[in-house]
Amino acid sequence: MTTREPISRRERPAKPALSREAIIDAALLVLERDGAEKLTIRRVAAELDTGPASLYVYVKNVTVLHALLIDGLLADLDLAWDDTEPWRERLHRVISDYVDLLTEHGNLARSAMFVWPDGPHYLSLVDLLLRLLQSADADEKTAAWGIDLILQHANIAAAEWAARASGTGQDLDELATTLASADERRHPTLAAFDTAVFVQGTPDERRRWALDILLDGITTKRHR
Amino acid sequence: MTTREPISRRERPAKPALSREAIIDAALLVLERDGAEKLTIRRVAAELDTGPASLYVYVKNVTVLHALLIDGLLADLDLAWDDTEPWRERLHRVISDYVDLLTEHGNLARSAMFVWPDGPHYLSLVDLLLRLLQSADADEKTAAWGIDLILQHANIAAAEWAARASGTGQDLDELATTLASADERRHPTLAAFDTAVFVQGTPDERRRWALDILLDGITTKRHR
Repeated sequence: MTTREPISRRERPAKPALSREAIIDAALLVLERDGAEKLTIRRVAAELDTGPASLYVYVKNVTVLHALLIDGLLADLDLAWDDTEPWRERLHRVISDYVDLLTEHGNLARSAMFVWPDGPHYLSLVDLLLRLLQSADADEKTAAWGIDLILQHANIAAAEWAARASGTGQDLDELATTLASADERRHPTLAAFDTAVFVQGTPDERRRWALDILLDGITTKRHR
Repeated sequence: MTTREPISRRERPAKPALSREAIIDAALLVLERDGAEKLTIRRVAAELDTGPASLYVYVKNVTVLHALLIDGLLADLDLAWDDTEPWRERLHRVISDYVDLLTEHGNLARSAMFVWPDGPHYLSLVDLLLRLLQSADADEKTAAWGIDLILQHANIAAAEWAARASGTGQDLDELATTLASADERRHPTLAAFDTAVFVQGTPDERRRWALDILLDGITTKRHR
């Protein structure tokens, strides 16, 4: 490619006005059509018939783009609570839905670990979690920091499952093999332990168990 | 580069025998000299005066290389316990050391989230954690799954701090701005909440708090 016939702006159709909303819509289109791995600023810009430089005014990098997109995805979450379902059950349900949603989009799940989603749906999720933890009698700090911990855990759970699904993660079998190689003299506690327990349980059982541990810790009075 | 004078093998110095240990040593050298971002199979192969293909026999990808390396780094951890220091304090100390160690090597910290380290030092770490949780009266399943949860949390803490240090993470200020934009009608609980609490605390305070929550959950009897 050397030279290109210049195209008069007058002959081209009007570009859609660039806005955060237009960028999110174009990015969702790229995500659905091409997959999360192909979601780059360049491709979203091409979708909007503009150059990457114009987009950087609205989204400073692809991670921030992911933050806006995650918020867009969260629009699909059921975030209703009528106060009759026990708070712990409701919390399990919303976190399970959240992890499932992120797991479908591996790249986004990885981003979610490093950026906070930005937008109204994320605020609705935090709003629901806050109501649930308050109804579990958590004080301000415990509720706020607890939400951070719960979402962090959900993000890594999603990223782990997405990694395993894409073949870049590790099999539990490899952990089992490593642990079974414990040396009686060097690792006496581990050598005497039934290491199979480390890798037991279905993904769902382990996820549920881990969230219960967090919730038990959060609702314990020791560290108030 | 078109043609190259063939070099007789007889005139070259003998290559060191390839082994897992030789690869780890060469990888540690690359890591120290060039940084984690430059740690590739290709570069480690060059260091060993061989081609990448020879290395793939020992390490199937760069993530597995990281798993071996993390084990190498763990050699620097103080993993002694004489049973006099309270178990919770000892656990805080070893996890804090572990997070600090990983944070220095951002790329490795990210890998640690998706692969289990493989080697004797990792086994020593698990051995110590198992002793500590057993002395806190945790049953088999709670201890084994609890160790997974604790290390997962430590890994993401390290990856988060490494991301923030390298400028690819997000500032807490951005989260504060997002949360402060809660809408009174759409997010009533959040709008009535002092959102500053979400971003309060020093990194150390928050890390300590989070680990205590996990340990409180693990030592609670509810889910046995």
